[in-house]
Amino acid sequence: MTRQQLVEQIRNKQTYLIVGLDTDITKIPKHLLTKTDPIFEFNKQIIDATKDYCVGYKINTAFYEALGIPGWEAMEKTAAYIPATHFRIADAKRGDIGNTSSQYAKAFFETLQFDAITVAPYMGADSVLPFLEYKDKWTIVLGLTSNTGARDFELQKAGDELLYEKVLRTAAQWGTADQLMFVVGATQASEFANIRSITPNNFYLVPGVGAQGGSLKEISEKAMNKEVGLLVNASRAVIYASGEEDFAVKAMLIAKEYQQEMAGYL
Amino acid sequence: MTRQQLVEQIRNKQTYLIVGLDTDITKIPKHLLTKTDPIFEFNKQIIDATKDYCVGYKINTAFYEALGIPGWEAMEKTAAYIPATHFRIADAKRGDIGNTSSQYAKAFFETLQFDAITVAPYMGADSVLPFLEYKDKWTIVLGLTSNTGARDFELQKAGDELLYEKVLRTAAQWGTADQLMFVVGATQASEFANIRSITPNNFYLVPGVGAQGGSLKEISEKAMNKEVGLLVNASRAVIYASGEEDFAVKAMLIAKEYQQEMAGYL
Repeated sequence: MTRQQLVEQIRNKQTYLIVGLDTDITKIPKHLLTKTDPIFEFNKQIIDATKDYCVGYKINTAFYEALGIPGWEAMEKTAAYIPATHFRIADAKRGDIGNTSSQYAKAFFETLQFDAITVAPYMGADSVLPFLEYKDKWTIVLGLTSNTGARDFELQKAGDELLYEKVLRTAAQWGTADQLMFVVGATQASEFANIRSITPNNFYLVPGVGAQGGSLKEISEKAMNKEVGLLVNASRAVIYASGEEDFAVKAMLIAKEYQQEMAGYL
Repeated sequence: MTRQQLVEQIRNKQTYLIVGLDTDITKIPKHLLTKTDPIFEFNKQIIDATKDYCVGYKINTAFYEALGIPGWEAMEKTAAYIPATHFRIADAKRGDIGNTSSQYAKAFFETLQFDAITVAPYMGADSVLPFLEYKDKWTIVLGLTSNTGARDFELQKAGDELLYEKVLRTAAQWGTADQLMFVVGATQASEFANIRSITPNNFYLVPGVGAQGGSLKEISEKAMNKEVGLLVNASRAVIYASGEEDFAVKAMLIAKEYQQEMAGYL
């Protein structure tokens, strides 16, 4: 999906919501557990219910890997089920030496056909460039994350700036804004204006609204650019809106609430 | 596997070699491609041939994920085939917010029953602690990696030290040396004495000898401590020693060469 297609979809649907499929077998409604593949069944119903209110889905690979092969199967089926009109993100936080990152890129861009993957920057340029070689795919580099651990390194001094600032400034040179996004946590709203000044043109994938407490209003006001430049992810707040048989309807209602709030900021 | 068991195994077998199973379907001998599971068949023969000369195996998850479900199956079978006497490392470079890292820990410590996993530190304490909650398992945090990209952030100033030094110093507080190791690349030999002074008691997992050019002699002289404290990984140099039918015998001979050199340093 090109940047232009993504922006058009946001404008047309008046939403920049990404629904996060952090699907946990212990949290999905009990009546699904009798299905052949409860995780996929849950995801399928969530996707059917929410697709008009979001522009994409983010699969958190950890929740699938925890189940072993059945989990990987559920991930593959889910990725294939997401409509081609929607942006498909593998939230995988991968990154390794070049020949290994090439294998991860192959896994998520070719074998699983995601549009985007999240990547950890610690190991530097040659750990990220193999992903960026896929010019028609998106590499989403961790910038400033939503968790308290961001204080340990990301928000520490690195020369005359903070580490996350150095990461943004450096990684932004590795690819164009047509293929490179950054993860910026919604809980870091006080840094958003600064982040936007460092990377004026890149899209941000913003987790951390909902269960983690970030404010959609604040990040939208501070970080939107003229091409929107924001994809805001909600996972638990949407998919676990109800733990009962009405889970898909409740997920739809929450997704719709986000969409309506987002329409007001666009 | 406890630290004491690991050290005893090193002393008894006079080796601290880890064989890295970076098994690439395009690089294994052609005659294996007719087998039901060529990757597992290759790994099985490599393990059978090298187990007397190494103390463990490191599975590079990227190479398995690139193949999708058949790859994940080959990884599961390989992990189960590694003798329980040997140290089983998932080289996965995972790390995410707490509830997600918990799922990765479950994937590799419970579902796949590895003894250890490599973890990226960028996101800070709460992204690593879920792994360390498994007190009888090992968490191996990236310190200073072997690739040229290490210069981009790891070797940059972070306050009054370098970033990798801050990571070592900080992460060493998150767990004991009985459960926490660091990845230190063999190509970074000039930093080894400094690294050992910062983390005197931790084991290091050292990739980068062989194909990447690091010197076994230099790292052994500079970084060994009184409990050895080193696990040196060789992947491509061992497993691709021959691309023909004699690949397992040739892998055994290279592993034996490493073992004999290591015996001289012990």
